[in-house]
Amino acid sequence: MRPSLYEELRLTKLFPIFGWLKTYTRQNFNDDLFAGSITAILLVPQGIAYAILAGLPPQLGLYASILPPVVYALLGTSRTLSVGPVSIAAIMIASALTAPEVSVLGNPVQSALILSAESGVIMLLMALLRMGGLVNFISHPVLAGFTSGASILIIANQLPLTLGLKSPSCGSGIGCYVDYLQTSNTITLSISLAALGLLLFFGKPLTAILKRAGIKLSLVTAISKCGPLLTVLLATSAVNYFNLAVQYNVAVVGQVPSGFPALSLNFINVGKWHTLLPYAAFIALIAYIESVAIAKVTANLRGEKIAANQELIALGAANLATAISGGMPVAGGFSRTMVNFSAGARTQMAMLIAAGILALAVIFFNPWFENIPKSALAAIILVAIFRLVRIKHIYHTWNYDRGDGLAELATLLGVLILGIEEGIILGIILTIASNLRKTSQPHIAVVGRIPETEHYRNIKRHSVETWHHLLLVRIDENITFANINYIEDYLAAELRRQPDIRHVVLIFTSVSDIDTTALETLENFNHALQASGKTLHIAEAKGPVLDKLQKTNFLEQLKPGKMFFRTEDAAKELG
Amino acid sequence: MRPSLYEELRLTKLFPIFGWLKTYTRQNFNDDLFAGSITAILLVPQGIAYAILAGLPPQLGLYASILPPVVYALLGTSRTLSVGPVSIAAIMIASALTAPEVSVLGNPVQSALILSAESGVIMLLMALLRMGGLVNFISHPVLAGFTSGASILIIANQLPLTLGLKSPSCGSGIGCYVDYLQTSNTITLSISLAALGLLLFFGKPLTAILKRAGIKLSLVTAISKCGPLLTVLLATSAVNYFNLAVQYNVAVVGQVPSGFPALSLNFINVGKWHTLLPYAAFIALIAYIESVAIAKVTANLRGEKIAANQELIALGAANLATAISGGMPVAGGFSRTMVNFSAGARTQMAMLIAAGILALAVIFFNPWFENIPKSALAAIILVAIFRLVRIKHIYHTWNYDRGDGLAELATLLGVLILGIEEGIILGIILTIASNLRKTSQPHIAVVGRIPETEHYRNIKRHSVETWHHLLLVRIDENITFANINYIEDYLAAELRRQPDIRHVVLIFTSVSDIDTTALETLENFNHALQASGKTLHIAEAKGPVLDKLQKTNFLEQLKPGKMFFRTEDAAKELG
Repeated sequence: MRPSLYEELRLTKLFPIFGWLKTYTRQNFNDDLFAGSITAILLVPQGIAYAILAGLPPQLGLYASILPPVVYALLGTSRTLSVGPVSIAAIMIASALTAPEVSVLGNPVQSALILSAESGVIMLLMALLRMGGLVNFISHPVLAGFTSGASILIIANQLPLTLGLKSPSCGSGIGCYVDYLQTSNTITLSISLAALGLLLFFGKPLTAILKRAGIKLSLVTAISKCGPLLTVLLATSAVNYFNLAVQYNVAVVGQVPSGFPALSLNFINVGKWHTLLPYAAFIALIAYIESVAIAKVTANLRGEKIAANQELIALGAANLATAISGGMPVAGGFSRTMVNFSAGARTQMAMLIAAGILALAVIFFNPWFENIPKSALAAIILVAIFRLVRIKHIYHTWNYDRGDGLAELATLLGVLILGIEEGIILGIILTIASNLRKTSQPHIAVVGRIPETEHYRNIKRHSVETWHHLLLVRIDENITFANINYIEDYLAAELRRQPDIRHVVLIFTSVSDIDTTALETLENFNHALQASGKTLHIAEAKGPVLDKLQKTNFLEQLKPGKMFFRTEDAAKELG
Repeated sequence: MRPSLYEELRLTKLFPIFGWLKTYTRQNFNDDLFAGSITAILLVPQGIAYAILAGLPPQLGLYASILPPVVYALLGTSRTLSVGPVSIAAIMIASALTAPEVSVLGNPVQSALILSAESGVIMLLMALLRMGGLVNFISHPVLAGFTSGASILIIANQLPLTLGLKSPSCGSGIGCYVDYLQTSNTITLSISLAALGLLLFFGKPLTAILKRAGIKLSLVTAISKCGPLLTVLLATSAVNYFNLAVQYNVAVVGQVPSGFPALSLNFINVGKWHTLLPYAAFIALIAYIESVAIAKVTANLRGEKIAANQELIALGAANLATAISGGMPVAGGFSRTMVNFSAGARTQMAMLIAAGILALAVIFFNPWFENIPKSALAAIILVAIFRLVRIKHIYHTWNYDRGDGLAELATLLGVLILGIEEGIILGIILTIASNLRKTSQPHIAVVGRIPETEHYRNIKRHSVETWHHLLLVRIDENITFANINYIEDYLAAELRRQPDIRHVVLIFTSVSDIDTTALETLENFNHALQASGKTLHIAEAKGPVLDKLQKTNFLEQLKPGKMFFRTEDAAKELG
């Protein structure tokens, strides 16, 4: 029996994959096969590198690239988002695992799996409570400051690997740092520099050369995205050929367990869940925000739609999947998604193909991973991450909006000095404070009539008619606890300046809400006006405001003051 | 040499007393003498009662009623505010002094003086930083919930005194409470009940009787305000005559040092200042907010003006004065100020007279204070405080505005369960969250032209002309990080619904600001629109918004999209 239309819609809403599978074509598959292969070529080095960045064994990054994208493909609403390990989440995991209260618990691999599972559960709870909108309260400047700060932390984390430094074991002091720098390994440094050179060449220069040679655009894209894989292949070959790992102490990835991981529930541990809760919450928050932001960019370009709440479900399930399959927390990666999109991916089939390639790589090529030099992977991360440090952006933000610029700078410094979570909280508080400060001094205009029209405009900007006994005041913002004192002081000053005024008309064209504090203050203000023989009126109140006022006896208290539908009516009657 | 006009204005601004002294008349003095005497009659029992409520010796309340009002009279901008000990600050002091980290320091009198001095310093610092406006962020619902909660704490604190209970020393459990209640003292309870009866009779019943007897209104006011003093006189006489304190264990005030206190700097102790800082900060905040609120009520009724920053200076100086003269923290008291105002006070001269009377009382009548029964004072507090518990107010607030009602209830419960400071913070957070939630779903209207006019109105409410390829959208709120996602989703949904639209015009009549997040999202949205062959335009942008946008290259990015001065221009060109 065919499912009813209602059942079908319901199914498509829960599993968006059925939305596109129905109309999937041979051409779509060709496009997805190409894009998926390119993305997989990027995923292998990224997966290993981000696991090392998080301070974890390499397989946690590889496993995170197999099952999670499959789960996301079933549940996610973005057709091009590439879900897997990402650098920003990796540095947050590193920060959590090295926190004293976490490291004392031992077994960092289990802690990482718990972070995966717990952030997944948090996302699913947020979906249940329909809290997708809460993330709106992290503004772009806070996100930008956070991204710059986290990227600087990543660079600081990776630079020692490119120099081949031993892990630092000295205290503080410049002498110690000099000693530390002298432990650098010339062979490792050479590999790093060669890798950096190759990666940079695979960027703009190679693309320009290939384009000038008249090569097909899709092939140019494919070739230019092979830089990381080629870098890894060449560097690993050099290590193998010259036996650099043993003879010259070049740090390499080391053994990766062969085959596919067994599914396990190794992450159930109540005490650790409790300790890791704040870290998991912030990883969930950032993973969700970054994923949805990226998904929206590509969806907008193709006129598709991202459903915020369904994304919480899809990403939450993907993180549970990564925990079960032994992987680190996942999110939508910016660079991978853009590669996938520009390589022409049509649907999540591309990611299913990439996941398949990753699974084959883990099963058949894992002996190859052992001798990948860490310095080559660090070079890949550095090239990818460097452009995320945007100090100049702070200056631009400050130029446009002081409050936002301050929030961005404070978030960046907070992340570096206080810690990742503290930096984000500081930024959120500053953004909200700056927002409140702005609404606390709303634009207020005394208006008059433009002669021979029914238009009322600011007396300071236009030559308008006014009336001796009538004050027409337009308030250009919702009236709340944050600005009612300012408005009251403004009106009181205006009345002291014009003692002959007998009627005050508040024009509510821009007022969509009046909160309790504002209402009570208006009541007192009206009371004081009446005591001095003046009358308060209201004009142009919108539907929702009127509905709210009619629940109170404010309109009664106003009498003989009136509600006027149009300012013109007030001017005719009182002017 | 006469001071110049400029010097005179400056002097009047710093010392508002010179503003009214210049025009002070004999009639003013007669009015002030009457009002000051009535207020002094209330101040004596209140001063002693509030000191006991705070857990302090009685003289700290009396001393707080002498020098602080004199200092406020010199510096304050309210002509009728009665500064001295107040009940809400008293319960906050009690809560601070019984906090474990404070009580362990010993010497509660010194701690109280430090609270006075420190809250004074905090107010002066706030004045220096012009932070008077910050208090706007405590909304009326939070203040109402706090007042109800603090009043319930006061009642719980005073009830044992009216029953004559020993201070509680048992643990928890109902059995213990039964034993505790059995320690109640029948004689004390009789005094309490008699005092309550007398005080209630001095309220409405006596006023009604006197008015019916045709007695002059000012005399009725004077007589009705003598209830507390008469209660104290009668109760104390009874204790003296029957020797109740010794023979029946009726708790009395005890010895009050004779004469005026020596000025001292006994409150300088760095360690204690540090421990008491959060308590002092909240006392300063609440003392300032309550004082300004009361001052504004009476000032509005007479068309006078309260200068918020000067009030911080005056109240800060008054609190330093109370610390130096051995008194508890002070603020403007609601009931006393209303008594002073309705008794006809013209200027702060009334409070100077009241302070003089208090000084005489402390010097000559202090032996009289010893045998005042605490139960009579508790009855005075209970009668005054009972009407401040406004549970029904929460219901009204909830009815008008859900978010505000929730904040009020949470503040009340927070004050009772978590503590005074925690309750206020909880309320502030909830108010801000509710405010953000409201602005996150702004009113948006698709508009069309009312035929044969230049007026554009919501297509859902009016029958208007629309155009097949043109979408006119009016956004009725500032565009910020909190609502840009909602706006973007709204526009995207509208465009999916009307795929033929080629021009989108955003009408900015109600938009006074666009923050960084909103600008960046609009840039992305514009980019996506262009990619799908549609054009974004803006109409009716206000001056400040235009200025801000012109600092960026957004207007460049819009092209071929345009800025239209009027919606009509956009409709003519694109329609």
